Parts: sequence; structure tokens; C-alpha cells
Amino acid sequence: QWMMLDWKTKRPDMLSDLDPFNFGRIVEDGFVFRQNFSIRSYEIGADRTASVETLMNHLQETALNHVKHVGLLGDGFGSTPEMCKKNLFWVVTKMQVLVDRYPTWGDMVQVDTWVAASGKNGMRRDWMIRDCKTGDILTRASSNWVMMNKVTRRLSKIPDEVRAEIVQYFVDTPPIVDDDNNIKLPKFDDKTANHVRNGLTPKWSDLDVNQHVNNVKYVGWILEASFFFLFNDLKWKSAPQTIVEKYELASMTLEYRRECMKDSVLQSLTSLLGNDQNALGDSHVDCQHLLRLEGGGGGEIVKGRTKWRPKNANRNKGIEDESG
Amino acid sequence: QWMMLDWKTKRPDMLSDLDPFNFGRIVEDGFVFRQNFSIRSYEIGADRTASVETLMNHLQETALNHVKHVGLLGDGFGSTPEMCKKNLFWVVTKMQVLVDRYPTWGDMVQVDTWVAASGKNGMRRDWMIRDCKTGDILTRASSNWVMMNKVTRRLSKIPDEVRAEIVQYFVDTPPIVDDDNNIKLPKFDDKTANHVRNGLTPKWSDLDVNQHVNNVKYVGWILEASFFFLFNDLKWKSAPQTIVEKYELASMTLEYRRECMKDSVLQSLTSLLGNDQNALGDSHVDCQHLLRLEGGGGGEIVKGRTKWRPKNANRNKGIEDESG
Repeated sequence: QWMMLDWKTKRPDMLSDLDPFNFGRIVEDGFVFRQNFSIRSYEIGADRTASVETLMNHLQETALNHVKHVGLLGDGFGSTPEMCKKNLFWVVTKMQVLVDRYPTWGDMVQVDTWVAASGKNGMRRDWMIRDCKTGDILTRASSNWVMMNKVTRRLSKIPDEVRAEIVQYFVDTPPIVDDDNNIKLPKFDDKTANHVRNGLTPKWSDLDVNQHVNNVKYVGWILEASFFFLFNDLKWKSAPQTIVEKYELASMTLEYRRECMKDSVLQSLTSLLGNDQNALGDSHVDCQHLLRLEGGGGGEIVKGRTKWRPKNANRNKGIEDESG
Repeated sequence: QWMMLDWKTKRPDMLSDLDPFNFGRIVEDGFVFRQNFSIRSYEIGADRTASVETLMNHLQETALNHVKHVGLLGDGFGSTPEMCKKNLFWVVTKMQVLVDRYPTWGDMVQVDTWVAASGKNGMRRDWMIRDCKTGDILTRASSNWVMMNKVTRRLSKIPDEVRAEIVQYFVDTPPIVDDDNNIKLPKFDDKTANHVRNGLTPKWSDLDVNQHVNNVKYVGWILEASFFFLFNDLKWKSAPQTIVEKYELASMTLEYRRECMKDSVLQSLTSLLGNDQNALGDSHVDCQHLLRLEGGGGGEIVKGRTKWRPKNANRNKGIEDESG
């Protein structure tokens, strides 16, 4: 058993804590992979802070490098040698991200990641992103993964041979973000949603080496719809530029239901959660999201929920308040 | 005067050549800024190689870090202190990129960049990207920049105070990519183009801190249109997946004509250059591109030309052949 008790008080020493070249390394008795990233100019938006997509890209990169560093990277994108033999690869089923503060260009962040069991046939992967200079926690994220067969595109149990490869790396700790279980959202469709966008099509560059749309790309679609809804339809307080400068995503939960391939055509639905339209302005706002195949038929791709807050609302405030 | 003669034979020593933490540093008597990048999993596409947008992002990052390292970074996105005082920022007018080979996940590349005068009121910036392990040149790029006023959005001459800041860093060498002067392309419009895509709108995340669409984002639109045209309309030889695996962009020239703001709606035109439709298959293909404001009126945003080649055509072949 392995505890994370010492993390809360530890303040990383910038120089001794960095690995030269930022390739990452294993820490915490072999259970945690740690890698630093300096935030680049093209990873920030008009408001000069890193986007949540940038953060999620860093999560993906550390997850893959973790597998690589423990010597388990087969030919695939994070697949172990035994998974490759059996034509299996990892697909994400759920992703929860809590952002306390967004880093800006030139900031160095430290990403820690570790894995745990999730039910009988799943794996959980958690991350913590901290500011290298201050040690502040910037972001926490938790995700669930299952295996898919490359040929049949069906989900698979974890074969014993694969379990034997990975189980030794599993930690026995609760998720770093409380699991909010399955997202229970009011039913909504293209007639009742506050905002509907049709005709979304993946670009060639949205595909990853598993030949489907990478999970981070959905975030772009959902965020764009959120901005459009909150700021165009609702005209949230002010002119668009000001809005991008004033509000930010505080947290996001996404449930991935099925694969999206290159020739899929999607519909994106967005609605306010609750009847709190009067609250728009200085307080938090919750939205629900659905990406589904256009033309109905029930093809749900991603279900999600986002929370938005005025910028700087979170400054000088512990992240504990946010997770409640 | 400063010569690049020693570059052709120099093979970088991986370890001594890297700077710890890859923040970059000034080399070559103060005229060249050099920074290393390790290619990350989210910077590669379905074919496992870095996209040209990734390479261009690295170009942008080194350009900005160059300005920062010589102590000339004012408040803006690459603006010097005198430029900030005068409300000026840099806009790119032309970008030429030659790619000999695309790096893949985990590769470390070394980007060198330097600046030169370009006419009376412009600046040229060149880049060379090399494989850190082999020393091979992967990419060469050359760009031209002028100054724009943040308030009036009009181009400006280089004020004497700004010239005094930057002229000491100008090198006196020819462009690393031969300037093909203004792109002379057959006139084409939405009636004569081989492929027309309407209704392109910038996303919030496409905007940079100068509140306009970042120049790299256009590349995504142009490449997507190219793929669509070459591989859907022309059904270039094979099934889509195979095509992405078989062909790649060899070079690209873009001329930026005017700014694109958040509320612009664009039309993307693509055509084959020449009547070489029979050549489709194993040989190179040239395309011309136009991004313009929808509804005509002559609002040209970007004019461009791309050259495509079968993958691996360039393996074991000097880049000199490509530039002819």
C-alpha cells in the first residue's frame, strides 16, 4: 500500500526536482511518473493562459511516457506488449478535470501521474499538475480506461497476460478527483437544448494513431460550443473579447460513449444546468453537453458537464473549496 | 558579416549541444538563437509523424524566445519595448517552408533561427530544424514580417527607435529558402477552382494575444482542404487511411494578405496547378490555395501553394534536390 500523505506539504525545489531535458522519470517508490513541461507560446490563447486542451495534451503525453518508462510500451499508443499481441488498445471512458489556476507562457509545470484498478476490467489514471516555482496545485484529473480490440472495435476484458504486466504498478489510493459516478443529466435533445450546432466533422488532423478522433479533440468542440452559447446566445455580460478575458473553465467531466471516426458527422448540444439564468454575471455557471451522431438514432459520442467561473475568482483560494 | 559555411558539415553532439531544460540559448556570435524540442505524442498525426503545424508552432516559439533572450521582449507577443510604446506588433506577410523529413514522437529536434533586413521596412526571419541525433536537416523556413498598429490595424514603417533596437541582430546572408517572389498563380475563383469549401469560421481558440487568427491556424484550413481535395475529390489512388500514410507535404508557400478576425467567414479554394492530373499517383503534385472572405468583394486573406510527394520519396536524398 502506498500513501500520498506527504504531497500536501511538499514544495518542490525547482532545480533539484527537474530532470535534465524534461524527459520525465519515475518517483515515489516506482509508482508515480513525473515530467515537467514549459508552457509554450502556441499553447496559450488570446487571454495568454494555457487552454484546457493544452493541459489534457500534457496528461496524454505523461501517460504514454509513464508506460514507456516502465518498459511496457509495445508498438501501439500506450499498449503493452501483451496488448499488442492481442490487438488491444486503451480507450478512455471518462475524464474529470479540475482546474484551479491556468499557467501562462514560460511557466514550468510538473505533471505527476499514476494508475490504479478500476472495477474488474478497467484502469484508473490520475494526474496532478503543479506550478514548479510555487509548488501550488494547478490541476487535478482522473480518468477511466478500458481495452478495445483494434479489429472488431469491441471492448475487451483485461486478459490475464496483460493484467500480469500492469498490476504491479497499480496504487491503492482513492481517485484524486471524487468520482461523481455516472453523469445524471436532464434529458435534452435538439429541440430542447439551448444551443445546437450541426455538421461537425472531424479533420484529418483530429485522428490519432488508433485511427479515431483523439479524446482531446472533443474538448475543443465542447468548449467552442460553450463559448458560443454562453457568450453569443446569452451575451454573457459583455463584448466577446472581454468575456474570454473574464471567464474560464473551472471543471469538466466527460463520458466517452463510442468511437468517432473520420466520416462521422456530429451534432453538439449545449444547455444551462438548472434554471439559474439570472445568475449569469459574476457567479458560476454549469452547462451540460452532448456530442452525438447527426440524424439521431441515439448515437451518443460524448456526454459532458462543464463549470465556468469568473477569472481570478479562484486566486488565493485553496483548491479544496473547488472540489466540494 | 556572418557566414553559415560551417553548418553544412557540423554534426551536433547530442549531449554537449543541448541546453539543460531546453530553454534555448544564443549561439554563433550572438546572431542565432537555438532551442531543442522533443516531439510529443499530441504533436503527431495518424501517421505518427509531426504535422507541419507542429513544426510551425516550434518556429513561432523560437522566434519569440529569440526576442526574449536578447532582452527585447516588451509586453507584446514578440514586440520590442519601443514597438510597445508605439502600439506596434509584428505581422507575417510571407512564409516558405521546405520539409525534407518529418520527425516522429520522441525525436529531439534542434531549431536555429536568425533575422535579417527585408527591404526598407521589413524583417526576414529564417529557421533551420535538424535532427539532434543525426544532424540531418529536416526543415528550412523563411518568413517576412512587417509592423502593424494595434489600434488602426494599418501597416507601419519601422520607426527609427525600433530599428535601433533590432538592427544589431540582423545578419547579412541570403534567405535559407530561395525567395520565389510573389506567388504568380493562375486566376481562379469559386467557379473555376477544383474544390471549394464555404463557411469556415475561426474558433475562439484560433485567436492569439493580438486578437486575430494566428498564422499557423490558416495552415490547418489549407491542409484540410488539400486532403479533402486530393483524397476525396480526386480519390488519390487509394483509401483515405492509406493516403494519409502514403503522401506528405513537401513544401508550402503562404502569402498573408490581410487579417482575419473572430467574426470573419471564409471560403477556401483549392486547385491543381498545371494540367498534370495524370501524374497523380507516384509523382509530386502541386496545388494552389486561396482563403478569402466569403461573399467575394476581393477580400483575400491568404494565397498559397503546396507541393505534395509520396512518403519516403525523400529518404536518403539530399535536401538540395528539393529546393530546385
